[in-house]
Amino acid sequence: MKKIDFSDTNKIKIKGASFSSLCASIKYKDRPDLALIFLEAGSIVTGVFTNSRTKAPSVIWSKKVVKYLFKNDKDPIVIIINSGNANAFTGKEGFKAIEKIASKISENVQISKKRILMASTGVIGEPLPYKKITDKIPALIQNLSENQVIGCAKAIMTTDTYPKFKFKKLKLEQNLISIVGIAKGSGMIAPNMATMLSFIITDVKISYAILKKITSELSEKTFNSITVDSDTSTSDMVLVSTTSSVNMKPIEKFSDKRLKKFSESLELIMKELALEIVKDGEGAKKLIEYQIVNALNYRSAKNIALSIANSPLVKTAIAGEDPNWGRIVMAIGKSGENLYQEKIKIYFGQYLITNNGKVHKKYNEKKVKDYMKKSNLLVKVDLGIGTGRAKVWGCDFTKEYIKINADYRS
Amino acid sequence: MKKIDFSDTNKIKIKGASFSSLCASIKYKDRPDLALIFLEAGSIVTGVFTNSRTKAPSVIWSKKVVKYLFKNDKDPIVIIINSGNANAFTGKEGFKAIEKIASKISENVQISKKRILMASTGVIGEPLPYKKITDKIPALIQNLSENQVIGCAKAIMTTDTYPKFKFKKLKLEQNLISIVGIAKGSGMIAPNMATMLSFIITDVKISYAILKKITSELSEKTFNSITVDSDTSTSDMVLVSTTSSVNMKPIEKFSDKRLKKFSESLELIMKELALEIVKDGEGAKKLIEYQIVNALNYRSAKNIALSIANSPLVKTAIAGEDPNWGRIVMAIGKSGENLYQEKIKIYFGQYLITNNGKVHKKYNEKKVKDYMKKSNLLVKVDLGIGTGRAKVWGCDFTKEYIKINADYRS
Repeated sequence: MKKIDFSDTNKIKIKGASFSSLCASIKYKDRPDLALIFLEAGSIVTGVFTNSRTKAPSVIWSKKVVKYLFKNDKDPIVIIINSGNANAFTGKEGFKAIEKIASKISENVQISKKRILMASTGVIGEPLPYKKITDKIPALIQNLSENQVIGCAKAIMTTDTYPKFKFKKLKLEQNLISIVGIAKGSGMIAPNMATMLSFIITDVKISYAILKKITSELSEKTFNSITVDSDTSTSDMVLVSTTSSVNMKPIEKFSDKRLKKFSESLELIMKELALEIVKDGEGAKKLIEYQIVNALNYRSAKNIALSIANSPLVKTAIAGEDPNWGRIVMAIGKSGENLYQEKIKIYFGQYLITNNGKVHKKYNEKKVKDYMKKSNLLVKVDLGIGTGRAKVWGCDFTKEYIKINADYRS
Repeated sequence: MKKIDFSDTNKIKIKGASFSSLCASIKYKDRPDLALIFLEAGSIVTGVFTNSRTKAPSVIWSKKVVKYLFKNDKDPIVIIINSGNANAFTGKEGFKAIEKIASKISENVQISKKRILMASTGVIGEPLPYKKITDKIPALIQNLSENQVIGCAKAIMTTDTYPKFKFKKLKLEQNLISIVGIAKGSGMIAPNMATMLSFIITDVKISYAILKKITSELSEKTFNSITVDSDTSTSDMVLVSTTSSVNMKPIEKFSDKRLKKFSESLELIMKELALEIVKDGEGAKKLIEYQIVNALNYRSAKNIALSIANSPLVKTAIAGEDPNWGRIVMAIGKSGENLYQEKIKIYFGQYLITNNGKVHKKYNEKKVKDYMKKSNLLVKVDLGIGTGRAKVWGCDFTKEYIKINADYRS
């Protein structure tokens, strides 16, 4: 369990955004499980969603909302999130539940249902007890407060061992911009999978098209470059929104110099949240960065990186602090990507392990074994055939993972 | 540890084939690790090989041999197999080692090196101590015996807990045909992966083209439809050979009625060996058959089956005897295959779990929980959209897997 200093969280504010959370007893009676984010008129929201073919109703609903939202910015936007039940594979009733919840919010804040996004995480296949949620809508709205984002970070947790949030300020010329992000990882004690949810809110003035583009690009390099157990959730969702509340000339062109700086900060927030999810992966003791360089192209590099990061044999070797580079060779090979064995250079940290298609002459297993004891590891693979590069972050595979996922079911 | 009755193994013979095995101390000093199969002139061999992009030298070598062998059937063929060292990612020295071994055999039995196949399984990346092997070639050849196939089954084991072999006789009209197969699974205590090797020998008279075609088709339905941990070895190899020693009219046409009967027996041997590999999977306690029916097509069905069978979350749930069907939904979804959620029917054994896109009204968790306690399980998924069907066999994911692969390294 990581220790977190909550003392300064009251200072985290985004003008135009307010937050609320409480316990609706959806699954457990002793912890917050319902969060609401209210974005004032003028806000815009974009997002990326799971590629699963068994998408949960909340994903299908929110994807539609994101598509239509940008046409009208004269009304507020609401994001509601529950934990304890994923409302996934729940048939028509799953959509009806969202409809009911959206209607209740719609009545209470006088906005169209089309401006309400929903995310759910928890058990798959159990009907969402939506009345527990609708009953709490008035209280949720009454509790809205500018400085309660941390409450939302707690309410969206499932088997996360700590709440995940990041906050940054940056200066774009004379304007001070704030970005806050919350996220949840990585597994549940109750059945199911590592669902990833993240909600990022900023106050920069930026066009919808640009925010959409950078959200998609940065998600690919951050949230879509982590893996805990190779299983894809029905419910993954990352929403990036801005209240547009900073009094500035909007960023409306890709050539705007301020865009680079803003993008870098947004990427940092997304990457830090993504890494928190891996670090808090079920049973994980180590965080590994897989760097693939000089591959045929980006796609090839990323496939190889994921093939290594997802290999149970690589992950168990790392759990055992064993520099078992033969398994890296295997995982590179099973990716199916083009390569020349003789050109592959494998590094653990600074140590060159292989070249010329075999183990490096000066390979010193004792030194590399010591390196493997670290909790943050780098595995680098140089394919030597092109300019493609990719980074992926993964964790190790421990007995605790099996314990969490096999021994318990609430 | 499974108990095997070896009392009848002396009766297992294939006319034209002889077998030999011994301990060459490649890695361990107390167990056989070298096997030789001698096939008399007139024999033919075909095979399927790993798709890995980091194929071991033995795979590259033997693939070439198989390609050229059929051009000359006037000389014998030799298959040599070692355990304890995979001779994988060993650079040019890896090929030189095979060259040396093949030369030695070539001298001793007066055949071209192009008629010698080699397979290796064990540690990746360590140079093959080929002198230990060449020193033993004369003894190996001297020991050749018709009824020692079981010795070969033992010598090719790595972390297998028991030797795997199957023997069948069938009648094709007036001719009695024999088929014997040996195989090894599924993991090593020393580093590395679940390498699958299998060698099948029969005495039927059949054309090379037909044997090649059915070997490839039947491998797809058997050896290529099992999964232990989703990791693909650098060294997988299945060789199917016939000594052609039965005095019969050769099978030379696909329309030959005898072919169907022979194919069925060969498939049974291959399937039984494949299932033995899964049952003996590292740490495995349960064998699961995944049946996908009414998918868009065969490829789609197979992808969905593998997506489920390889999911760590499905496998840990099964280890925990938990009918966690939500994870099956997740794994179907992550396959990326076309489907309609509302049409998916999931069965555990005879129990219908879902229909109409949600849990079945009469789902009785208690009954299904009892079913999950069995050691042989059936998970069936009906996609309801086409006629594609596939079967895949997998095992569960237990703490012992982690123990075998993380805690130990010899």
